[in-house]
Amino acid sequence: MAVTTTTTSTSENSLRRALADKQSTIDARGNAMRQLKSSGASKAEIDEAVKALTALKLEKASIENELKASISVDTNGSVISRDAFRQAVVNTLERRLFYIPAFKIYGGVAGLYDYGPPGCAVKSNVLAFWRQHFVLEEDMLEVDCPCVTPEVILKASGHVDKFTDLMVKDEKTGNCYRADHLLKDYCKDKLENDLAIIADKAAEFKHVLAVLDDLSGEQLGAKIKEYDIVAPDTKNPLSDPYPFNLMFQTQIGPSGASTGYMRPETAQGIFVNFKDLYYYNGKKLPFAASQIGQAFRNEISPRQGLLRVREFTLAEIEHFVDPDDKSHPKYSEVSNLEFLMFPRAEQLSGQSAKRLCLGEAVSKHLPNEMAHYAADCWDAEIKSSYGWIECVGIADRSAYDLRAHADKSGAALVAQEKFAEPKEVEKLVITPVKKELGLAFKGNQKMVVEALEAMNEKEALDMKAALETKGEVEFEVCTLEKTVTIKKNMVSISKEKKKEGQRVFTPSVIEPSFGIGRIIYCLYEHSFYMRPSKAEDEQLNVFRFPPLVAPIKCTVFPLVQNQQYEEVAKQISRTLTAAGVSNKKDLTGTSIGKRYARTDELGVPFAVTVDSTSSVTIRERDSKDQIRVNVDEVAAVIKDVSEGRYTWTDISEKYRPKMKQYLGYTYINFIRACFGL
Amino acid sequence: MAVTTTTTSTSENSLRRALADKQSTIDARGNAMRQLKSSGASKAEIDEAVKALTALKLEKASIENELKASISVDTNGSVISRDAFRQAVVNTLERRLFYIPAFKIYGGVAGLYDYGPPGCAVKSNVLAFWRQHFVLEEDMLEVDCPCVTPEVILKASGHVDKFTDLMVKDEKTGNCYRADHLLKDYCKDKLENDLAIIADKAAEFKHVLAVLDDLSGEQLGAKIKEYDIVAPDTKNPLSDPYPFNLMFQTQIGPSGASTGYMRPETAQGIFVNFKDLYYYNGKKLPFAASQIGQAFRNEISPRQGLLRVREFTLAEIEHFVDPDDKSHPKYSEVSNLEFLMFPRAEQLSGQSAKRLCLGEAVSKHLPNEMAHYAADCWDAEIKSSYGWIECVGIADRSAYDLRAHADKSGAALVAQEKFAEPKEVEKLVITPVKKELGLAFKGNQKMVVEALEAMNEKEALDMKAALETKGEVEFEVCTLEKTVTIKKNMVSISKEKKKEGQRVFTPSVIEPSFGIGRIIYCLYEHSFYMRPSKAEDEQLNVFRFPPLVAPIKCTVFPLVQNQQYEEVAKQISRTLTAAGVSNKKDLTGTSIGKRYARTDELGVPFAVTVDSTSSVTIRERDSKDQIRVNVDEVAAVIKDVSEGRYTWTDISEKYRPKMKQYLGYTYINFIRACFGL
Repeated sequence: MAVTTTTTSTSENSLRRALADKQSTIDARGNAMRQLKSSGASKAEIDEAVKALTALKLEKASIENELKASISVDTNGSVISRDAFRQAVVNTLERRLFYIPAFKIYGGVAGLYDYGPPGCAVKSNVLAFWRQHFVLEEDMLEVDCPCVTPEVILKASGHVDKFTDLMVKDEKTGNCYRADHLLKDYCKDKLENDLAIIADKAAEFKHVLAVLDDLSGEQLGAKIKEYDIVAPDTKNPLSDPYPFNLMFQTQIGPSGASTGYMRPETAQGIFVNFKDLYYYNGKKLPFAASQIGQAFRNEISPRQGLLRVREFTLAEIEHFVDPDDKSHPKYSEVSNLEFLMFPRAEQLSGQSAKRLCLGEAVSKHLPNEMAHYAADCWDAEIKSSYGWIECVGIADRSAYDLRAHADKSGAALVAQEKFAEPKEVEKLVITPVKKELGLAFKGNQKMVVEALEAMNEKEALDMKAALETKGEVEFEVCTLEKTVTIKKNMVSISKEKKKEGQRVFTPSVIEPSFGIGRIIYCLYEHSFYMRPSKAEDEQLNVFRFPPLVAPIKCTVFPLVQNQQYEEVAKQISRTLTAAGVSNKKDLTGTSIGKRYARTDELGVPFAVTVDSTSSVTIRERDSKDQIRVNVDEVAAVIKDVSEGRYTWTDISEKYRPKMKQYLGYTYINFIRACFGL
Repeated sequence: MAVTTTTTSTSENSLRRALADKQSTIDARGNAMRQLKSSGASKAEIDEAVKALTALKLEKASIENELKASISVDTNGSVISRDAFRQAVVNTLERRLFYIPAFKIYGGVAGLYDYGPPGCAVKSNVLAFWRQHFVLEEDMLEVDCPCVTPEVILKASGHVDKFTDLMVKDEKTGNCYRADHLLKDYCKDKLENDLAIIADKAAEFKHVLAVLDDLSGEQLGAKIKEYDIVAPDTKNPLSDPYPFNLMFQTQIGPSGASTGYMRPETAQGIFVNFKDLYYYNGKKLPFAASQIGQAFRNEISPRQGLLRVREFTLAEIEHFVDPDDKSHPKYSEVSNLEFLMFPRAEQLSGQSAKRLCLGEAVSKHLPNEMAHYAADCWDAEIKSSYGWIECVGIADRSAYDLRAHADKSGAALVAQEKFAEPKEVEKLVITPVKKELGLAFKGNQKMVVEALEAMNEKEALDMKAALETKGEVEFEVCTLEKTVTIKKNMVSISKEKKKEGQRVFTPSVIEPSFGIGRIIYCLYEHSFYMRPSKAEDEQLNVFRFPPLVAPIKCTVFPLVQNQQYEEVAKQISRTLTAAGVSNKKDLTGTSIGKRYARTDELGVPFAVTVDSTSSVTIRERDSKDQIRVNVDEVAAVIKDVSEGRYTWTDISEKYRPKMKQYLGYTYINFIRACFGL
C-alpha cells in the first residue's frame, strides 16, 4: 500500500483552479502582513506570518510546475508540445555538453552517458549540497564502499535470486526485449491510435496498464500471446518471458572461482558495516549512515535517455531506528506541507492523485487492525516530459537486510537497550512455520515470513486471536503488494515472561534513496525555457538554474576588445577563482547580445561586463536586471549571491544585509533548493 | 629514461647534513629579513624575501619528512621501527573507522576496502581541494564517464592485449601468484636473512631486483626454475609464468554478445570525447580535461593494504598540447624547486637518488642527438613505511591514444592551426615499414612504430642522415625502456613541399594521474605521531592533519555536564554546521583529557570547550595552545582558520587580519597543501 505521487490524468483545469485559489490566499495573507507590520506587531508575530507566506508560495510554485509540465509546455509565453519541448532541452544539453552519449565516436552504448563539463559541474554542486544538507546537517555517518561485490553479499540480500526483469527473445534473431515494455507499448498504442476499439476493449487495455507491474511471467506471456504481440524490429514471434538478472557479473581474482557483481545499490555496503557504525556512534540509536556512489543495472533495453541507464550515481541514506519508535525528531516541521499524493490502492482502482498534507497522509497510513506491513514504500516523483519520474524512493526495509546478513555471516547485527535495573519482560514470540508457508506461497515464502516477523505486538495478538477463532486470517504483505491468507498451522504466536537486564533487537531500516542522474535530468527540464532575442527574430534557450547548482556562477567579459578592460576582466576572474567561485572569461570579440545568449544557455546566473576600469555592470540572467558595482567589490558580491548568503533582490537593493535562511533540512527541502522552488 | 624519485639507500646521515645546512641558510635569511624590515626596505623587497624564505622552509620540511620516514621512525621523541610504526597507524585507522576491510563480516575480500566516516570525509576534502586546485584554478574541462566500458575502446587502447601481469600457478592447488613478486621476495629474503651468501651472489640478487620490471615471462620463468622457487603456501612446484589480464570482464546487455570491462583508468573516457571537448574549448590548444572516478584492476594477489587494491579512485588530467610546443605557461614558477630525483638509468646502474632543481632535471632530460622519445614518464613518489610509493604518475602519452581511437573509430581526432595566409610547408613524412619492424621486434613492433612516428623534425632528420651513412642507428624507445637497432629498410623519412591554409595535427597528451587512495594513505602515515599523556603513563595517537583535509574541523564540548553549557555547545555546533564547517559535539561526561585524546586521534585540529556562557576556550591540537573567544565569534573564527584564510598563529595573535595565499597551483603544491608542508 505504497503512497506515491505518480502519473495520472490530473486535469489542467483543476490545476489552474488550484493555482488561482492559492494566489488569492497569498494576496490576502500578503495584505494581512502589511497591516501587521504597519500596526507595529511583535517580531515573533511578523516572523510567523512570513513563514506562513513562504510556505504558501512554495506550494504555489509546486502547482505551477505541475501545470507547466502537463500536456503542453509553456516556456515563457510560447506553448509547445511535450515532445518538442523535450527535443529542445535535449538538443541544448547535448550541444553544450551537459551530457554526451558515452563512446559516441564508436556509435555509443545504450544506457551509458558521459557528463561533459557543465553537467559534471551541476552534478558536483548537487552532491556537495547533498552532503551539506544531509551528512553535515543531520550528523550522518558517510561511508564509501567498493562497487565490486562478492556473490555471498548479494545472495544474502536476495539480489542474486530476485533482482530480475522478465525478458522475451525474438525467436529468430535472438534480440531481447522487456516483456512488460512490449505489452505496455501495445496497450498505449491501441488506446491512443486505434479509434475503432470498443469501450470494453479500451477498459481492458487500461486495466492491463494499471496492473502491469503485478503481472507474473505466465500472465505476461499469456497476454503477449493473446494480443499477437511480435518483435517490434522484425515482426518475428517472441519466446515466453523468462527472468533476466540485472546485475553485471564478473570474476574477482585470477582463479575463476570467485564470482562477483557490480553493486546494484550502495545500501548493502552500509548494512554489512552496521556493527562498526553502531559502535562508532557510541552504541546509540537512531543514527543514519549514508553513501554516494555508482550503482549498476544491466537493463535489458534502456530507453528514456538519462532516466533509465545502466550505470548511475546513487545517494543513499539508511536510518537505523528502534522498530518500536520510528518517529523523526524534525517531522513536525514538515507535516503541514502539502503534496500531490497517490496511494497504491487508488492507483489500481483507476482513481486520480490528490493533494494531501504530509501529516494527513502519514496518519491515514498508520497500521490499523486489518493492515500489516512488512515494509512500506513511498516514491517521491518529479514530473517531466516523460511523465512522473521516481527520483527518490523512500522504503521501510524493516529488519530484512540486517537479519539476512546476520543469518548468512553469523555476525550479530543487533542493538542493545540497557535497562537501569533488570525488568521482567513479556516477550512476543512469532514463529512462522516455514514448511507450511513454503507449500502455500512457494517463491513468495520469504516475503510472507518477513512480514509475519515484522508485526508489532498489537498486530500479532490480533492475528493470534483471529486464528484461534476463525482458523485463518487475511494478511497484507506490502512487499508483495497483495493480501494472502494465513492459516493456523502457518505461524505460532505466543508471549513469554523473563527477567532481562537489556533489550536486544535488530534495528529497522528506513532508506531514502536518491537517483542523482534523474534529479539532474528533471532539474534540466524544470529549469529550461525559451525567450525571444532582442531583435525578436529567434528563440533563445535559457536554463534558470538556482546559483546553488548552476555549473558556472559567473561570466566575465570586457564590453569591447580593449587591453585595459581585458586586464580588469582577468583580475576579476582570478579573484573569483581564488574565492572558489566557478567562472568563465569570454574574451572573444562577439557582440554583447551573443555573449549573453551563450551564457544564458549554460544557465550562468550572473554576467559581469567590464565597461570601465573602476566599476562594472552585473546582469542577472532571468530578470536581465543590471546593477553597477565597484571593481574591488565585485568578486565578494558575486560570491555572496551565488552561495546564497544574499538574493539578487538583496543585492540589487544596494547590498542591504539581509541574511537568508537558505538551507533547509528535509528531503523535500533538498529537492526544492536544487530546483530553486 | 624516466626520472623518478624512488626508493634507494639515501643515507640518514646525508639527510641530516642536508637538514642542518638548510636550517643554517634559513637562519641567515631570517636575520637578513629582519634587518631588511628594520632598515625600512620597500614592500616589494620584503615580499621577495618572504617568498624566498617560505620556499626554503618548504624544502626543509621535505627533507625532514624523508628523514622521518627513513629506516626508523621518530614520532615526537620516541623512535620506533617502521613495522611498529605502520602497525600503530593501521591500528588507529581501523579502530577509528578511517577504513574498514570491505565485507569484513564475511571474512573480507583481498584488495577491497571501505572508507568509514572519517576516511570518507578526508577523501571528500582531498577531492574538493583537487577540484579547486586543478579544475577551477586551471580552467580544466571536467567530465564524468561510465566505469562500464565496451571492449572496442579497450581493444583500441591496447588494454585488452597488453594490460597483463605475469602469473604462476601452484601446480597442485591452482593458487595464483605474481611471478615477479615471488622472485622479488626470494631475492630480498636472501639478501636480508642469508648471511652465508657470497659477494658475487649478493650482487646477482641486487641486479635481479634492479631489472625485475624489465624481465620477460621467459626470463622470469628461468630465474624461478634456477632458484628452485616454490609456492609459498604449499611448497608445491609452480607453472611457467603466463600473462593474466587485469581487467574485470563482464557482459553488457542481455544477449551475451557484447563483452565489456570495468575501466582500468579514467583516461580513455576523455580521449574518446576529444573532438567535442576541443570544440567546447573554442578549437584552441592547449587545454586540459580531467576526470575523477573509480578504476578497477583485478590484481592477482593484492598486498600492502591500501596501496595495492582492486578498486580505487583516480583523478586524472589530460593536457592536450601541440606536439611542437609542450611548454607550460606557469613552469617558471616551479622550476627552482628542489626534489630528490632518480633517473631510470641511474636506478638500473645501482646509483642513488640525488637532489636536483626541477629546472635542471627538465633541461638535462631534453632530447639530444642520440635520444628519441615516443613517450616519457615521471613518477612522483611519497615515502611511506612500505618504501617510496608512486602516488602521481605523469606520462607523455604523445599521440598514441588519439591515433589509436581515430584509427579504430574512423573519427578525426585532430586539431587545426589556421594560417593567416596559405603557407608553403615542407612536411616531414615518417613511414615506418611495418613488415620489417614486425619481423625484427614482434610483440614490441607497435611501441617502436609509435616511437618512430613521434620523432620531432630534428630527430627524424638526424636518423635519416645516420641511416644513409651507417645503414643502421641505435634508437631509444622509452615505452620499452630500452634501445633498439633501426635498420635502413625499417623506416622511410622524407620531406615534401606543399601549400596549405592550415596545419592539421594530432595533439600530444601529457597525463598527470593521481592515485587518491595512495595519497590519502601516505597522508595518514605522514600525519601520524604519538605523544605521552599528561600523566605520562601512556602514548596517545595524534593525526596532525592540516585543517584543509581534516575529517572534522572542530569538536565542541561543555567543560562539565551542565544544561547551560550544553545549550551553548549545541548552539555553536549548529552555527558551525550552517556555515558548512564539519564538527562533532561530545556531550559525554568523560574527562577533558580523554575527550581531547579522542579528538586528537581523529585529527580534529580545533576543540572548543564551553567553560562559561559568554566566552569559550579554543585549543589547537598540535601545540595544545589555547585562546579565549566570545561565544558569538567562535564559529566565524573556526571557519576562518579551518578554511585557511587565517593560520592559528594569526588567530592567536588576536585575529590580526593577515591574509594567507593558501592555495598554490602546481601538482607539487597540491600535495604539499594536502600534507601541510
